[in-house]
Amino acid sequence: MTAYDDLMTFQRDTEALGQVAGRLGWDQETMMPEGATPQRAEEHAAMANILHARRIDPRVGDWLAKAEPADDVAAANLRHIKRSFERTAKVPARLAAELARTTSLAHRTWAQSRADEDVASFLPILQKVVDLRKEEASAIAGNTDPYDALLDDYEPGATGDSIGAMFASLRPRLVALRSAILDRPAPAKLSGTFDDAAQLDLSTKLALAFGYDLNNGRIDKAVHPFSSGSGLDVRITTRTNAVDPFNCFYSTVHEVGHAAYEQGIDAAHLLTPVGAGVSMGVHESQSRIYENQLGRSRAFTGWLYGQMRDQFGDFGIADEDAFFATVNRVSDGFIRTEADEVQYNLHVLLRFDLERALMSGDLAVGDLESAWNDRFAADFGYSVDKPSNGVLQDVHWSEGLFGYFPTYTLGNVYAGCLNEAMRVAVPSLDDDLSRGDTSKATRWLRENVQQFGGLRPPVDTIAHATGNSPSEGPLLDYLEAKFSGIYQL
Amino acid sequence: MTAYDDLMTFQRDTEALGQVAGRLGWDQETMMPEGATPQRAEEHAAMANILHARRIDPRVGDWLAKAEPADDVAAANLRHIKRSFERTAKVPARLAAELARTTSLAHRTWAQSRADEDVASFLPILQKVVDLRKEEASAIAGNTDPYDALLDDYEPGATGDSIGAMFASLRPRLVALRSAILDRPAPAKLSGTFDDAAQLDLSTKLALAFGYDLNNGRIDKAVHPFSSGSGLDVRITTRTNAVDPFNCFYSTVHEVGHAAYEQGIDAAHLLTPVGAGVSMGVHESQSRIYENQLGRSRAFTGWLYGQMRDQFGDFGIADEDAFFATVNRVSDGFIRTEADEVQYNLHVLLRFDLERALMSGDLAVGDLESAWNDRFAADFGYSVDKPSNGVLQDVHWSEGLFGYFPTYTLGNVYAGCLNEAMRVAVPSLDDDLSRGDTSKATRWLRENVQQFGGLRPPVDTIAHATGNSPSEGPLLDYLEAKFSGIYQL
Repeated sequence: MTAYDDLMTFQRDTEALGQVAGRLGWDQETMMPEGATPQRAEEHAAMANILHARRIDPRVGDWLAKAEPADDVAAANLRHIKRSFERTAKVPARLAAELARTTSLAHRTWAQSRADEDVASFLPILQKVVDLRKEEASAIAGNTDPYDALLDDYEPGATGDSIGAMFASLRPRLVALRSAILDRPAPAKLSGTFDDAAQLDLSTKLALAFGYDLNNGRIDKAVHPFSSGSGLDVRITTRTNAVDPFNCFYSTVHEVGHAAYEQGIDAAHLLTPVGAGVSMGVHESQSRIYENQLGRSRAFTGWLYGQMRDQFGDFGIADEDAFFATVNRVSDGFIRTEADEVQYNLHVLLRFDLERALMSGDLAVGDLESAWNDRFAADFGYSVDKPSNGVLQDVHWSEGLFGYFPTYTLGNVYAGCLNEAMRVAVPSLDDDLSRGDTSKATRWLRENVQQFGGLRPPVDTIAHATGNSPSEGPLLDYLEAKFSGIYQL
Repeated sequence: MTAYDDLMTFQRDTEALGQVAGRLGWDQETMMPEGATPQRAEEHAAMANILHARRIDPRVGDWLAKAEPADDVAAANLRHIKRSFERTAKVPARLAAELARTTSLAHRTWAQSRADEDVASFLPILQKVVDLRKEEASAIAGNTDPYDALLDDYEPGATGDSIGAMFASLRPRLVALRSAILDRPAPAKLSGTFDDAAQLDLSTKLALAFGYDLNNGRIDKAVHPFSSGSGLDVRITTRTNAVDPFNCFYSTVHEVGHAAYEQGIDAAHLLTPVGAGVSMGVHESQSRIYENQLGRSRAFTGWLYGQMRDQFGDFGIADEDAFFATVNRVSDGFIRTEADEVQYNLHVLLRFDLERALMSGDLAVGDLESAWNDRFAADFGYSVDKPSNGVLQDVHWSEGLFGYFPTYTLGNVYAGCLNEAMRVAVPSLDDDLSRGDTSKATRWLRENVQQFGGLRPPVDTIAHATGNSPSEGPLLDYLEAKFSGIYQL
């Protein structure tokens, strides 16, 4: 046994325990009886303690010092383990415990403040979360930009500057596109109500159409859809809405994209660091390309229109072209999670700029609400009406997840790049999609992105698939072309 | 912090991790996609490694040496932890690993041998399991009876001799009762088929009628019904059978009995050793008294008859008296798990005597099948027709579970004792049960048995509730009275 073998034997158990901890989370959102909550908190904490102790086990340090990678895969595994070991070891136990305690409290405070529409009651604990995350960033990365240290948890290698430059290029064209679209007449909405069981039936059909493997997964309902697990057990959830079945269908397709990434990784990497998606951004690129570039395309919505007619009869949309416009309807709104392809990224850009300024100290917590409202009015052209539609709408900051938001838009940018390359590689794609056949697209994504898991850093993962460094250009070109067509701009 | 406090802080996490491991098992039987099996095996193994390491953690030994119990509860917790620590520490890691490997292989071999009706192909690996379990027993208890050492895992304090004496008293009266019953005309069977969803509806109604708390539990389907979990999250499973809805209903009530024990323990004991059922036998006493002495009583079946008429209409049974006889129908059969109240214990007594003889060396593995068949013919009056109806019918021995079988009949014996005391304490019981009201009975069981969890050893747990040392007399009296009435003996 070499040091690498010893390390990987240990790591394999750590990965298996990580899967168990993740499964507990799935259970909590889908199956767990309400009254079990306090006990589950103790179970989660016990698993977190075990995982934390393994991540900083001194033997891991010894093995890392001695291990010689035999190939690219081994080098990637060592890189991931080293990163986790060093990051975990650098954060004092006292700080980690205080962060866990404070974010748990902040989460509850946020929920109450949001219900009360009372920003002031949330700010003191948010200030504490910001201070603790800054302290953590400083422990990890010394005097470098604290935001970069936090970003690295979600998107290894990314920096605030690199993302900031990309987002600065996105913003004006998105604002202009949004404004042009909203000057045009809005497409029709769906009319009527849609049976819950029938939505779930068609949702499962969609999951299977996008290649989701039910032999290694399952679909359940959850309040907030998510995907969970890696390797041989990757589960997704969805939800239904009586008047908006698209919420169900596109939640499903989105989660299938995440699940396809995990299910698509080479089985040789099972329960190793390389055997999981490499970053939040690349993960989101898969969910978004399934959901948007494939699922909301003219060709695929043509097929979906027929499926919905079969399932639901008449719902007030005359033909495939009108249905395509309905699926891609752009309208005013305050909420990120309900936003369309065009406006979604504007919501993210706003959060990115604000959280970066919070971390650098350029923005005080006390000025956060007015900064949010000013920026929103500038980009969207109307004012936030209440905090739950503004600065209190998302859970992330209460949980200390600074650096997480930009991965949503990074995912869209990556999806734009991948779509451009995929369209060249699969010239028959629209023909296939119009028959509900995604197989050539999903195979291309599997072969060029998914199978590699964590083998390459995020940017290299996309560059390997497309032949180019990722940039915002393809996403913008795609959005402008698509929405110019729908809205006759 | 005293040594006891430190120990209990550590133990609480161990108990929480034990709950997590149990939840994985629940997931595997109810929710897990088929293709996840190999990964789940690694997850189970990783959890088992963690739990094993915690059970023999040297700090536990130090704390145990220093801890002073402040009260009965602390003394009981120390007793449980010490027992687990010493038992785990005495079995060499090499032997524990070989047992795990061999029983896993034996389980697969048994399944194939049973499918092939080929006893000979199972015997070599069974011999290995027997030898390893003897070696383990000797490591735990030195030169004392190896069977007693194994029994202690399931029923602490019980010995082969004490159980043997009790079972020797049971056997002749059970054989005589069975024989007298089968000389009489058999009651009618149910006719027709019974809708799956309607069975599950009534099954849930039964669970609630017996006090099952869905705020701290849930009901799912499984091939082999079981209950799972402790404290605030105690889940049960059931199954349906188109022509035999009793299979569903009494599986549910049985598992509700197990769950009621765990749900009924004083919340102060959450995630401590005292916070779980004390033994397999006492656990089975709860499942059996719910299922049989309450659920199959004349009074309760009268109520159930009305419920079934409402749900299913006519099913060929004329009235409540006839229905009571149908529910308690005794008929020839080979299979333990399908046996009625009278014959069930004869199946267990057979296994107890054979496995005890295997462990003592009085019976050779090569002679096991003929010993089984001879004993079966002697007690049941007809011959085993094939191994899957005889020596290969149960999974237990392939998994090395020697010492487990007798706890089924111990549970029935304890249920007999508890029923005798409960009938005295709750004189209105039949009136209540005839209205489907089990609340006074379940409250009596909660107050006198369930709330205490692992506070007292098994025999003391029953004696505390009844005022007497447990004996086989009440069970035999109950069975003879009940079945003499039904069969007019």
